[in-house]
Amino acid sequence: VRDTVAALADWGTTAFRLWLVAADGLVLEERRTDEGLLSAQSLGFASILQSHLAAMGASERLPVMICGMAGARQGWLEAPYVPSPAGFEAILAGAVRVPDALREIRIVPGVAQGDAAAPDVMRGEETQLAGIANLRREGRTIVCMPGTHSKWVEVRDGTLASFRTWMTGELFSVLSRHSILRHSIGEAPAGASETDVAFLAWCEEGLAHPAETAALLFRIRASSLLHDLSPEHASAALSGLLIGAEVATARRQFDAGAGELLLVASGRMADLYGRALSLAGIAVRTLDADVAVRDGLTQAARRFGMLEAAS
Amino acid sequence: VRDTVAALADWGTTAFRLWLVAADGLVLEERRTDEGLLSAQSLGFASILQSHLAAMGASERLPVMICGMAGARQGWLEAPYVPSPAGFEAILAGAVRVPDALREIRIVPGVAQGDAAAPDVMRGEETQLAGIANLRREGRTIVCMPGTHSKWVEVRDGTLASFRTWMTGELFSVLSRHSILRHSIGEAPAGASETDVAFLAWCEEGLAHPAETAALLFRIRASSLLHDLSPEHASAALSGLLIGAEVATARRQFDAGAGELLLVASGRMADLYGRALSLAGIAVRTLDADVAVRDGLTQAARRFGMLEAAS
Repeated sequence: VRDTVAALADWGTTAFRLWLVAADGLVLEERRTDEGLLSAQSLGFASILQSHLAAMGASERLPVMICGMAGARQGWLEAPYVPSPAGFEAILAGAVRVPDALREIRIVPGVAQGDAAAPDVMRGEETQLAGIANLRREGRTIVCMPGTHSKWVEVRDGTLASFRTWMTGELFSVLSRHSILRHSIGEAPAGASETDVAFLAWCEEGLAHPAETAALLFRIRASSLLHDLSPEHASAALSGLLIGAEVATARRQFDAGAGELLLVASGRMADLYGRALSLAGIAVRTLDADVAVRDGLTQAARRFGMLEAAS
Repeated sequence: VRDTVAALADWGTTAFRLWLVAADGLVLEERRTDEGLLSAQSLGFASILQSHLAAMGASERLPVMICGMAGARQGWLEAPYVPSPAGFEAILAGAVRVPDALREIRIVPGVAQGDAAAPDVMRGEETQLAGIANLRREGRTIVCMPGTHSKWVEVRDGTLASFRTWMTGELFSVLSRHSILRHSIGEAPAGASETDVAFLAWCEEGLAHPAETAALLFRIRASSLLHDLSPEHASAALSGLLIGAEVATARRQFDAGAGELLLVASGRMADLYGRALSLAGIAVRTLDADVAVRDGLTQAARRFGMLEAAS
């Protein structure tokens, strides 16, 4: 039986995940809730964390390493962005300590690309990247990290060199719920498997004509009015179109066809992006995003000696 | 003093406009409310129209010609789409009569492009086009009609030949209110004049890189986080980016640089699109959209003899 020595938390905009880990990084217990930034702003970050740790029987001195939106300006404690290009050690070493807490609680900083021509920010993905051992080596790797705000990242010789964000996931969400497309999509679940044909057909449109997205979006509406496109197919079409347009433009910017692409994703996202990248003829290696973020948090916790003391 | 001989109504998704006109088409009285389709579905189309006509002192036999979403499936009475290519006479002649009304009430049909490869629909714009005398002549004209769902239309030899819809206005609305960009834009009014610089700078981005819209959207967010982009400038940036991307792709599809473009728009839309088209180097002639729709409704009313009888 292993002892719990630390807790790790990925605190995103809408999701909160907490793990208790042993000295060797093995996960002993996990919790997943929807108490992300948006809930935590009203409920309080400290009390959410404390209530879960108490319920899991954790000691009052158990240290906690956190990444994600908890470190945003509107989060728990601002963990100022590390400017890119940035080495992973420097990023993890910047984890700021929450003051006035009995236990040691630290939050990993995000990364900012201050470049006036291409300003961009990330919070959370830097920790996933820090958890991928292969990225510490020499050489160049392009990483695709799907999500609400998809990131494409160039890692060069162990350094987070540059990155860019596509609002793909959020576009899917706001368009399917708040635009006229809601009449076409209704309550249809996103990306059901029987909609493969629609996903692939519209993904090809997005890949071929990424500049025409704003027009192709309305074509989804017209297709349901004139050609009885079903809600399930309309949902798959929207997803395919947006992901296809992202892949088409990102591959060009990152010259992603040149070598193997690293796809860091889980579940449905891994499946959809895998199909889109395959359609684009890009060779892909996939890593589970959940594993990556935990490994990155483990690295950060080890960096601050959190994995050494027994609780 | 002229007698009122008919009423004309433009019944859109969110707006309702009603005019009383004389036999020569001169407007004698006007009303504008927000009782569009969305309100009318609950309040009732007949009672909204009747209450305004009564308040304006119109006779119970005064005929009414309507265009727009009142003719949609979810509207007052479905006025089935006329398939394109379509002549303007055929469109106006398709105005369906609302049954069981004491007065003659007719609704102009929309136009559908059934083509499986490029399905599209319009309701309201066909009436504006029918009101533009120049479009009845021989030759080819490209028409840009900005709005919630912007239409670009090719009119050839007096026939509505083909068209395409960009969801530009709706993208602005849902992104500024429901996406992460709401934190950057806040309650800033859209398109204030002091934001000319931001509008033009981001419009150039959209014109140059229309395929990268989903990434440039996030750059607006990053610019407010890292470079203190103000809410007014963020709003102007979003507007410029989306309009620029629309113009870049539409001009290519419609070969719009080849000749003069007809811009049918009013107020702020006319101003913003005028600047974007000028930035793209496209020569433009502008017609007021309000005048066009009234002229189109007048044509339709005359077609059914509504302008002949005194009320």
